[in-house]
Amino acid sequence: MAHNTPRADNTHRISVGQLDMPPRLLLGPGPSNCHPRVRQAMAMNEVGHLDPTFIALMSEVQELLRYVWQTNNAFTIPVSGTGSAAMEATLANCVEPGDIVLVGCNGYFGERLCDMASRYGADVRRMEKPWGEVFTLEDIGTELDRHRPVMLGLVHAETSTGALQPMEGIGKLCREFGCLLLLDTVTSLGGVPVLLDQWHVDLAYSGSQKCLSCPPGIAPLTLGERALEKLNRRKNKVPNWYLDMMMVGKYWGAERTYHHTAPITMNYALREALRLVAEEGLETRWERHRKNAESLWDGLKDLGIGCHVAKEHRLPSLTTALVPDGVDSKAVSAFLLQNYNIEIAAGLGQLAGKVWRIGLMGFNSRPENVTLLLSALRHGLEAVG
Amino acid sequence: MAHNTPRADNTHRISVGQLDMPPRLLLGPGPSNCHPRVRQAMAMNEVGHLDPTFIALMSEVQELLRYVWQTNNAFTIPVSGTGSAAMEATLANCVEPGDIVLVGCNGYFGERLCDMASRYGADVRRMEKPWGEVFTLEDIGTELDRHRPVMLGLVHAETSTGALQPMEGIGKLCREFGCLLLLDTVTSLGGVPVLLDQWHVDLAYSGSQKCLSCPPGIAPLTLGERALEKLNRRKNKVPNWYLDMMMVGKYWGAERTYHHTAPITMNYALREALRLVAEEGLETRWERHRKNAESLWDGLKDLGIGCHVAKEHRLPSLTTALVPDGVDSKAVSAFLLQNYNIEIAAGLGQLAGKVWRIGLMGFNSRPENVTLLLSALRHGLEAVG
Repeated sequence: MAHNTPRADNTHRISVGQLDMPPRLLLGPGPSNCHPRVRQAMAMNEVGHLDPTFIALMSEVQELLRYVWQTNNAFTIPVSGTGSAAMEATLANCVEPGDIVLVGCNGYFGERLCDMASRYGADVRRMEKPWGEVFTLEDIGTELDRHRPVMLGLVHAETSTGALQPMEGIGKLCREFGCLLLLDTVTSLGGVPVLLDQWHVDLAYSGSQKCLSCPPGIAPLTLGERALEKLNRRKNKVPNWYLDMMMVGKYWGAERTYHHTAPITMNYALREALRLVAEEGLETRWERHRKNAESLWDGLKDLGIGCHVAKEHRLPSLTTALVPDGVDSKAVSAFLLQNYNIEIAAGLGQLAGKVWRIGLMGFNSRPENVTLLLSALRHGLEAVG
Repeated sequence: MAHNTPRADNTHRISVGQLDMPPRLLLGPGPSNCHPRVRQAMAMNEVGHLDPTFIALMSEVQELLRYVWQTNNAFTIPVSGTGSAAMEATLANCVEPGDIVLVGCNGYFGERLCDMASRYGADVRRMEKPWGEVFTLEDIGTELDRHRPVMLGLVHAETSTGALQPMEGIGKLCREFGCLLLLDTVTSLGGVPVLLDQWHVDLAYSGSQKCLSCPPGIAPLTLGERALEKLNRRKNKVPNWYLDMMMVGKYWGAERTYHHTAPITMNYALREALRLVAEEGLETRWERHRKNAESLWDGLKDLGIGCHVAKEHRLPSLTTALVPDGVDSKAVSAFLLQNYNIEIAAGLGQLAGKVWRIGLMGFNSRPENVTLLLSALRHGLEAVG
């Protein structure tokens, strides 16, 4: 070679076959299966991230996110990462060192909020409940009064416990205390009612791979006026470049100024997923999730399996089913995977070994999946339980 | 409804049509078009992020990344974000407040390294050259001696200028000064020789949407032993949860401990993109990129268009073509987009208005694309130039 092409070392040059994954039915805590039309959209040819056609698509995605979240927030975007990136974006932008952040700790994701907030210098205060329970308005009032936080962080749908936090009155209370309300809607958005503006939520994030039936890798984020004011008042730069919403907001705002390269095909996927929500309509979708969850709960009862969460606080999109005494929970879930290609998940943290986590999310919330799962579970309990 | 399903507000419930994007030929600075087989892989049904089949896929992706980077680094992973996320991961993990970080500033991405490093408390020192030029070993020796940095950050392939930084001897020099060497290989990986271990590079990152011909949304990252030692010696937690490689490393390491949900389909895509590199072989691929770039440079010359970068430092994957005097550069690129569905990009920063940026990356580095672009450019110069 004239140009002295160097020799390459072939140590790691492995030969791998054509991608071939088993046809799993994903009934765990997520990812859930994406809708076939989402997969189809993802395979559309790419355009550039500053192409006029992509710029137009961005506006559609933003508007549809406002619908699914029931918010008028101008700042409503998909973050170029998974749900955890959008979660971190809320804290990275709107917490400054020394800020008191009160976090509802009644599951795994509340703990994660504490960890993340502390990395941005927050003075984290914990409000605790056993895993599977929720906070009352009274609990929250007492703790707001005691800690006088800058921000209250709550998990709307706790994927680790299957509990749904009631939201009535909390936002109003936060405003009385001059406190921002942050809400994790990862496992609720698109599956159970989320009424951000009505609830006076100031910051929220979600994932794509739960009730929106889109693959993971892009994550909804919304910031209301009060959150943006806090961001604009910062004394120093956001200590996270990738998630700096002062800059990212200029790409998703009127300017469309380059910050980083948006994940083009993930945006195609999210657009199609949101389009499906708009076609079905939120009310129909919420009812569908509840109806299928109730079938699951009834069927579990017939199998002698209870639910960890009291019925009035049970999350339709994720059920924590109690493992019967003497049953090896891992053996049963392994049986389902091996014999039925069904994924359900084990309990996390305080609930390890005590529950199975069963998700009926988005496209997967269908009667045939409930029927199949219950039959497979019955078989599994007989075979290895 | 028995369960009081709330009413949804339909203000933002817009009706959008089926996704339909124009068939662009992406010959700008990236994203480039992905290979059709990558698109096909992306449409494979999803499995869970802890599924045994996904765990096996993760190992394949890691091993193929080692091949394309020519490294034995155990810590070699795809970050769940775009190239900028992997870029930030290097600094977030291996810089502590007060660390002196020397950055080669000869283009846009060197500036970004300075901005990011400063957000992690680095004492940033700048080593400057005009955009389009590169650093000599002598330049670097002088600056290492003057600043005694903890880390030297260089951009191997500057997407904003089209210059390729020669790497011979730099890593050895850094080791003499006890300094870590960080290398941005976003626009070189898979297109021009990158020999990480031979060059003694300690930290490197890349993007998926350049010479790897995969969509954006996943980003290669590798950390060598010396970088990991620095990370393990940290006094405090990494001030970035999503990019904390102490935790992410446990998911991609032997433990496969859950951290965040990996972007499943983006990993499918990256696996296929890397499989294509391994099939072709790096040497063939490097030669292909050089050959097609040389055809482009010859063809531009025939059109009376020069290159901004001296031939010996010219990057095969991205060319900064000088806009002839009196030609409206934006009118020409708009003409190419409207009439030929070809995307090329304008100059950035110091080169705004002075150059077009033309990429021939990965799958797009093909003779037919060079021929078409040159014909279209000739037409554009005649029509609107």
